[in-house]
Amino acid sequence: MTRADGRATNELRKVKITRNYLKYAEGSVLVEFGDTKVICAATIEEKVPPFLKGSGEGWVSAEYSLLPRSTQSRNVREAARGKQTGRTHEIQRLIGRALRSVIDLKALGEKTIWLDCDVVQADGGTRTAAITGAFVALVDAINSIWGESPKPFPVKDFLAAISVGILPAGVYLDLCYSEDSTAIVDLNLVMTGSGQFVEVQGTGEKGTFSQEQLNEMLAVASQGIEVLLDIQKETLGPVSWKVGREG
Amino acid sequence: MTRADGRATNELRKVKITRNYLKYAEGSVLVEFGDTKVICAATIEEKVPPFLKGSGEGWVSAEYSLLPRSTQSRNVREAARGKQTGRTHEIQRLIGRALRSVIDLKALGEKTIWLDCDVVQADGGTRTAAITGAFVALVDAINSIWGESPKPFPVKDFLAAISVGILPAGVYLDLCYSEDSTAIVDLNLVMTGSGQFVEVQGTGEKGTFSQEQLNEMLAVASQGIEVLLDIQKETLGPVSWKVGREG
Amino acid sequence: MTRADGRATNELRKVKITRNYLKYAEGSVLVEFGDTKVICAATIEEKVPPFLKGSGEGWVSAEYSLLPRSTQSRNVREAARGKQTGRTHEIQRLIGRALRSVIDLKALGEKTIWLDCDVVQADGGTRTAAITGAFVALVDAINSIWGESPKPFPVKDFLAAISVGILPAGVYLDLCYSEDSTAIVDLNLVMTGSGQFVEVQGTGEKGTFSQEQLNEMLAVASQGIEVLLDIQKETLGPVSWKVGREG
Amino acid sequence: MTRADGRATNELRKVKITRNYLKYAEGSVLVEFGDTKVICAATIEEKVPPFLKGSGEGWVSAEYSLLPRSTQSRNVREAARGKQTGRTHEIQRLIGRALRSVIDLKALGEKTIWLDCDVVQADGGTRTAAITGAFVALVDAINSIWGESPKPFPVKDFLAAISVGILPAGVYLDLCYSEDSTAIVDLNLVMTGSGQFVEVQGTGEKGTFSQEQLNEMLAVASQGIEVLLDIQKETLGPVSWKVGREG
Amino acid sequence: MTRADGRATNELRKVKITRNYLKYAEGSVLVEFGDTKVICAATIEEKVPPFLKGSGEGWVSAEYSLLPRSTQSRNVREAARGKQTGRTHEIQRLIGRALRSVIDLKALGEKTIWLDCDVVQADGGTRTAAITGAFVALVDAINSIWGESPKPFPVKDFLAAISVGILPAGVYLDLCYSEDSTAIVDLNLVMTGSGQFVEVQGTGEKGTFSQEQLNEMLAVASQGIEVLLDIQKETLGPVSWKVGREG
Amino acid sequence: MTRADGRATNELRKVKITRNYLKYAEGSVLVEFGDTKVICAATIEEKVPPFLKGSGEGWVSAEYSLLPRSTQSRNVREAARGKQTGRTHEIQRLIGRALRSVIDLKALGEKTIWLDCDVVQADGGTRTAAITGAFVALVDAINSIWGESPKPFPVKDFLAAISVGILPAGVYLDLCYSEDSTAIVDLNLVMTGSGQFVEVQGTGEKGTFSQEQLNEMLAVASQGIEVLLDIQKETLGPVSWKVGREG
Repeated sequence: MTRADGRATNELRKVKITRNYLKYAEGSVLVEFGDTKVICAATIEEKVPPFLKGSGEGWVSAEYSLLPRSTQSRNVREAARGKQTGRTHEIQRLIGRALRSVIDLKALGEKTIWLDCDVVQADGGTRTAAITGAFVALVDAINSIWGESPKPFPVKDFLAAISVGILPAGVYLDLCYSEDSTAIVDLNLVMTGSGQFVEVQGTGEKGTFSQEQLNEMLAVASQGIEVLLDIQKETLGPVSWKVGREG
Repeated sequence: MTRADGRATNELRKVKITRNYLKYAEGSVLVEFGDTKVICAATIEEKVPPFLKGSGEGWVSAEYSLLPRSTQSRNVREAARGKQTGRTHEIQRLIGRALRSVIDLKALGEKTIWLDCDVVQADGGTRTAAITGAFVALVDAINSIWGESPKPFPVKDFLAAISVGILPAGVYLDLCYSEDSTAIVDLNLVMTGSGQFVEVQGTGEKGTFSQEQLNEMLAVASQGIEVLLDIQKETLGPVSWKVGREG
Repeated sequence: MTRADGRATNELRKVKITRNYLKYAEGSVLVEFGDTKVICAATIEEKVPPFLKGSGEGWVSAEYSLLPRSTQSRNVREAARGKQTGRTHEIQRLIGRALRSVIDLKALGEKTIWLDCDVVQADGGTRTAAITGAFVALVDAINSIWGESPKPFPVKDFLAAISVGILPAGVYLDLCYSEDSTAIVDLNLVMTGSGQFVEVQGTGEKGTFSQEQLNEMLAVASQGIEVLLDIQKETLGPVSWKVGREG
Repeated sequence: MTRADGRATNELRKVKITRNYLKYAEGSVLVEFGDTKVICAATIEEKVPPFLKGSGEGWVSAEYSLLPRSTQSRNVREAARGKQTGRTHEIQRLIGRALRSVIDLKALGEKTIWLDCDVVQADGGTRTAAITGAFVALVDAINSIWGESPKPFPVKDFLAAISVGILPAGVYLDLCYSEDSTAIVDLNLVMTGSGQFVEVQGTGEKGTFSQEQLNEMLAVASQGIEVLLDIQKETLGPVSWKVGREG
Repeated sequence: MTRADGRATNELRKVKITRNYLKYAEGSVLVEFGDTKVICAATIEEKVPPFLKGSGEGWVSAEYSLLPRSTQSRNVREAARGKQTGRTHEIQRLIGRALRSVIDLKALGEKTIWLDCDVVQADGGTRTAAITGAFVALVDAINSIWGESPKPFPVKDFLAAISVGILPAGVYLDLCYSEDSTAIVDLNLVMTGSGQFVEVQGTGEKGTFSQEQLNEMLAVASQGIEVLLDIQKETLGPVSWKVGREG
Repeated sequence: MTRADGRATNELRKVKITRNYLKYAEGSVLVEFGDTKVICAATIEEKVPPFLKGSGEGWVSAEYSLLPRSTQSRNVREAARGKQTGRTHEIQRLIGRALRSVIDLKALGEKTIWLDCDVVQADGGTRTAAITGAFVALVDAINSIWGESPKPFPVKDFLAAISVGILPAGVYLDLCYSEDSTAIVDLNLVMTGSGQFVEVQGTGEKGTFSQEQLNEMLAVASQGIEVLLDIQKETLGPVSWKVGREG
């Protein structure tokens, strides 16, 4: 059974990661999952939040935003309204947590890496695209200051994320916006290069799901992530060998 | 193997739900999971958010807050700072989504039910305690306007939530604050009275987890939720028979 | 002549102060004046506002908030709206000023004591209940760091507060919400253990009052405060002997 | 015994009320108490706050602000900081309450009168100068729409306010800034033309006061207000006859 | 004399306007002036600001933002800080005013067109690039609802903008960031297709300028705008014929 | 041809600058252009913004505000709304830039001078009146700390500003509010004592203008500024000799 765009139910949209998308950032990509497009920029800052001062450890923090017209109807600019929505808070916390899970914050040292994920076009799956793209920007940023240093590289493993959902017709991988609006259950999976889970967020606002359905979604999502990990490695080329290198 | 407070690893803390805790609210409880104490108040408002006007459907919305000295060190009052933290946004969105999953919004009609979850004391598991307690307040609030009406009761099923985590020594149910700080993986499960999942949020910020570990956590959490469902039913007494009643 | 709840016009509601209400705070109470219930928590912070840095003096600051459903109809959460109301500002300034009047800020040293007064249920008189309860929490907090130290105890005198009003039928002590809404004149009195006035705030928004009426209100209020002072002393037990102790 | 500026302890500073100070406002004054200067503008708006819609009643609301350099050292502009201070809230609530006490809101009808009190120079007593001046602006604004109408004039009585304090050397009327900083007790009195009290706010942050001292302060303040009422009447000229006119 | 990038002093950088850059917006472009890149999106909203309700006239409003890492060092996200900077306000007011000058707001009817200008990369001249690009997005948006309608097309004339500056070495057109930082005088010119001025903003913060220098800057800028107008026309193709068409 | 108030088209309104208008500020004026009245206060602060720390250079920063009833209909107080409007931001940035252009920030040393421009009455031309008046306050403030010091005086030249507009009947100098509302083009000119331009801001929101019209406006405005410079010199008296003095 196929979908509006001809994909199989367990097939990703066309994924493309354009490296070094921005001139000034220490690392940056444009990541595209079909019509979903997110600019991810990594910035290295030589200070840490107050709770880490003097600890010798670094931090990774993410911010997320939708351009006003990334969406079907215009969404009000958060800067004009004077505050970020709850959805933005929820997503940027997820992105930050996910990326910190593969960073050795001690090895990084007292630096903060900011990951700015700005959605240019939103056709479903923006948070998982952001995580997948931000990982590449993060590796490039750290590589820009690590160079050929013999110290352990602070990125411990690869990391990618994908969404999967239960639609009336079954389990679908990598939902686009129109599919997402008919989904009964929605699950976002963040997984490492070694196949371990980092975040599992399954939500049944319009329905519920069983243990079996959860397992089926995770299986389909894991396959999708395998493909994403390959794309990340190909994008990073030789730099990808540094990930997980222990010095 | 036992814990600091003598519990077995798959044992809940002492849970207590005090019904009608507030004089003015349509429904309210004080819910206690050990030293974690949350006041949950349900308010019925005769209007809906703009996107539902004229739809005939209702809405359920949650707000969450920590009293400044519910925590070990004082946390700055959000009203004084002028904005809610990302953590607050994330939690109140989770509570709202979870409770909407068991409400028949059409049957409710054009009303909003506000669920205010104010944490008086925070010793771990405040968001799951809030969901478990808010469910009871919500049933009472709806009952206060439904009375003996023969129409289908808009609460379709029971709903409770619990946390579970992977500690160095294994999987633990219902983490208190000191356990939570040593957890490698943290999972919150929201489940219905019929054993279906509503939300599965597993997070491995300090580590990762496998499919097997996920399944183990879910099994332990499901057992804990069975106990919570019984406590909810006992607390609600005869009103509990209305849940799921189709008219 | 008696009132809806059977009290005499110069009689307080049932007042109860539950000490050590919270697990983490250095001092805390639940104070109840009839159905009015306020949680007062005292936190000691080892720093002072900028204008006191290096002065050797301490500070006492209060914050006040209504839980959204402490009131008959739900009041919008200030943290969600992004600012505190004028009423909140007015009340928390009053509480802070009142408590500072009995503290020897020099003896306290460069510390700030925060008094968080969170109203769980609001049936009139929340600001005077908050002052009366916060005093006990403040004594306990200072005692927690003073212990058996021979230095002068920084609490110079007892302090309590009560409201009184002119209703069509005469002067009434300790107004509950329904009485408060029919009051022509409203007066809050803050008084010390030695019978001196700290704050007199008489307000005639719906009417005016003469010097004689002012004196009558003050006489009735003073009697009420005598009772409150006794309750504070009984609540504090032996710790009450430290108040006013000069070393 | 005399003061730095040669006044007797029960003597006002030189008070001057310049009527029609602004070109566009319906009523406006510059009020000066010595070096304290406040611009008071009254604006009539043909709508009321939500809680009065359809009630047939009007409203009076006040706003207060210090120009950044009205004070000895520059105070940060509230508009730049994004919020009003607690002190501002407290003062503008006092001004609004005081003026509403002499307005027949039913006779006014569904209108709001805004009173903007902007302090150009602050040498003590700004809130009482604001009330005294705003009263004149308010009468002029109402007169501008009432004209020769035979309906009862909605201003029921005159209203003025003054500060008085207990200094080490005794009770002083109308404190300037340098006196205010040495005051032990500070009292603001708002009184009507018929000698009734509207607001009595006595505050002993740096000390306390007895019933006798309260009475002494009120006696001195009342005399000061008599003088202010005469100045208001002289300023208003024939318009002053309308105050209290019942149609 | 040539510049770092080999341009003549009166030569534009490479300018490129990619039409229909976004999938959902009624009109959108990516405009590039060398390394300066701005996404301009036009949204049509079927309502107008309050001051135009019932007037039959429409409105054009612009918003401007820098992505956090569009700049050399990261600039704090305005949505996270909770307010827009003064620079943002100044620029978005300029963009809005400029575009309204060529729109027949009566012919447009009661609609608002929002122009969102989001800077992806900032290498100088972002506000003039935004105006030049937003014009194309605006024409496309209006064309999307006008189609082949015989009514007058509401865009009266073409509009483009460019910056010019006085550097130590003379007058330079279209300053990049490094040139801009050494400029003594900076001028932004907005001009119509018929060669009329809409905005002239010359600023000499680091120096001053004479009437002759002003005229020289305007002459150079006007030439640059001629080139931009040609690029706009080429980009719009046949749609460009509608601009200025009177029905 | 004359105007409503009898002025010639190239004639200023009556301009008056009252020096030392405020008691506490280091420099202050009330500046009047006809019915437009602005209080300008200069404050010297012994610190600089972060980007200048340790640079040895000073800063000049301006803030602008309309009193709520300075305008024909009341404008909402920015402090109450919690943010400044875009117009306020635009104007205060202009004032700051303009005044910095004649200050030798190195000679000033690490100090910030704040210029608070508060509009008491707004009858057109408030921003140019503010610049013209703030210059005098600024000179007085610097003089208050420079005294007879032999070091170069940090004010390099005089500075004044005026508005000019194209009305249906031609070019008019110094527009009052009613003229301003019928203007097709509006231009603000800031000029130094030596006749150099500092800011030229010509805006044709309701029309456009040619190079010739621009030149005509600048010529008329320059004449107006000559008159303003004379008034500034007369106001400053002997202090005016210090402006431009090189030590």
